[in-house]
Amino acid sequence: MPQSIKYISTCLSPELIHLYNLPGTVVVVVDILRATSCITTAIAHHIRAIKPVESLVECKKWQDRGYIGAAEREGQRVDGFELGNSPFSFMNPDLEGKSIAFTTTNGTEAIVRSAGANQVIIGAFINFHSLVNYLKKLPYDVIILCAGWKGKINMEDTLFAGAVIESLLDDFDLDGDAARVALQIYRSGKDNMYDFLSSCSHMKRLRRLGLEEDIHFCLQFDKYNVIPILKEGQIVKMSLSDMLF
Amino acid sequence: MPQSIKYISTCLSPELIHLYNLPGTVVVVVDILRATSCITTAIAHHIRAIKPVESLVECKKWQDRGYIGAAEREGQRVDGFELGNSPFSFMNPDLEGKSIAFTTTNGTEAIVRSAGANQVIIGAFINFHSLVNYLKKLPYDVIILCAGWKGKINMEDTLFAGAVIESLLDDFDLDGDAARVALQIYRSGKDNMYDFLSSCSHMKRLRRLGLEEDIHFCLQFDKYNVIPILKEGQIVKMSLSDMLF
Repeated sequence: MPQSIKYISTCLSPELIHLYNLPGTVVVVVDILRATSCITTAIAHHIRAIKPVESLVECKKWQDRGYIGAAEREGQRVDGFELGNSPFSFMNPDLEGKSIAFTTTNGTEAIVRSAGANQVIIGAFINFHSLVNYLKKLPYDVIILCAGWKGKINMEDTLFAGAVIESLLDDFDLDGDAARVALQIYRSGKDNMYDFLSSCSHMKRLRRLGLEEDIHFCLQFDKYNVIPILKEGQIVKMSLSDMLF
Repeated sequence: MPQSIKYISTCLSPELIHLYNLPGTVVVVVDILRATSCITTAIAHHIRAIKPVESLVECKKWQDRGYIGAAEREGQRVDGFELGNSPFSFMNPDLEGKSIAFTTTNGTEAIVRSAGANQVIIGAFINFHSLVNYLKKLPYDVIILCAGWKGKINMEDTLFAGAVIESLLDDFDLDGDAARVALQIYRSGKDNMYDFLSSCSHMKRLRRLGLEEDIHFCLQFDKYNVIPILKEGQIVKMSLSDMLF
């Protein structure tokens, strides 16, 4: 329901999302390194739709139906699928207009668990201000759902949640200490996000895999001016008619 | 197993503890406002044992067997029980040598969920250095389990986890981003913990109930030189023979 006092909260792990009341809210799913950065890149590069699926078996099934298969586990592309989880691989002009089935270690599960919200959209630093400008105008509560790492909290998604929260402080009240934790983390790290994250678990994991360029790409603000949105089980580009105000 | 590289991690909600491997670890349960501060106060004031129980029904059952009943829900003492969740109520000399059955909104559940660890001990600011000095010498990994608020993360327990982690940086490696988040929160808040926490959910809840004195008490360092330990389902004072080194 539209309301006068609006709240913003964050859920730092998909394993805690059952504690949040999703109906009547807009959920922003975030997996900075790298699922939601990839999805945003893909939508900005005119990929038609992305079908988030939880398992490799399901991803294969959609591949058999003509989807491009994108699958990542533990930071690496899984054999038998065309794409992994690097944003650069979603920039290929040959993919324009195509549909992709996408499964990742953490991000796609978070998207699937968000069902029940009024609207599920995808956030990343690379579409930060498009996202924030949309959220500001919403007459609904907002929940930022961090994908984390295998159920545990991660730093980069918490940092992103804090960035969104700081940008919305004039428009929303904070609901819950997780939002305050995220805000404090962002304030501590915002002046140099790359260095701030450099000791963190997934950053180290990706650097060991030689994926420094991916990290730098995912930490850029406002590369794209699109908002990916979940509609009927697929992620597409948000259009004017999807806007809830 | 004793080992050369030791890890410290924190679990910011009891709902995530299934993601941690408890055997072979020492778990420190923390519910700063106020369950573990109460337990520490009680043990320091010569209460013989505290039986943590999850439900009011179970607490009543132990009361019928001769235990003193202590029960809190939503920050307030529950009718029909002698004690609530204020540390001051555990200082009564009449309670010396007595056993207490204790149920609280969050803290006791966290204790119960820690079963499976090598050892479960109780942490609070009021026994901070006793705790840290013990942990430093341990040849085991340490997990700080924050009680949170009804499954969600809270700021004061995260702050405490960060305080312990900062004190153990020379002795342990960090495992997981939750530990890094907690450490950063402590570094942001340590110079004035009361002000830092003043906007947080449970602090506001307790202040509305007129419990400012309880908060100030619980944020003091090193009031007591005891470590409460879970033994056979009850919390007692740690003795020399309980020390795992």
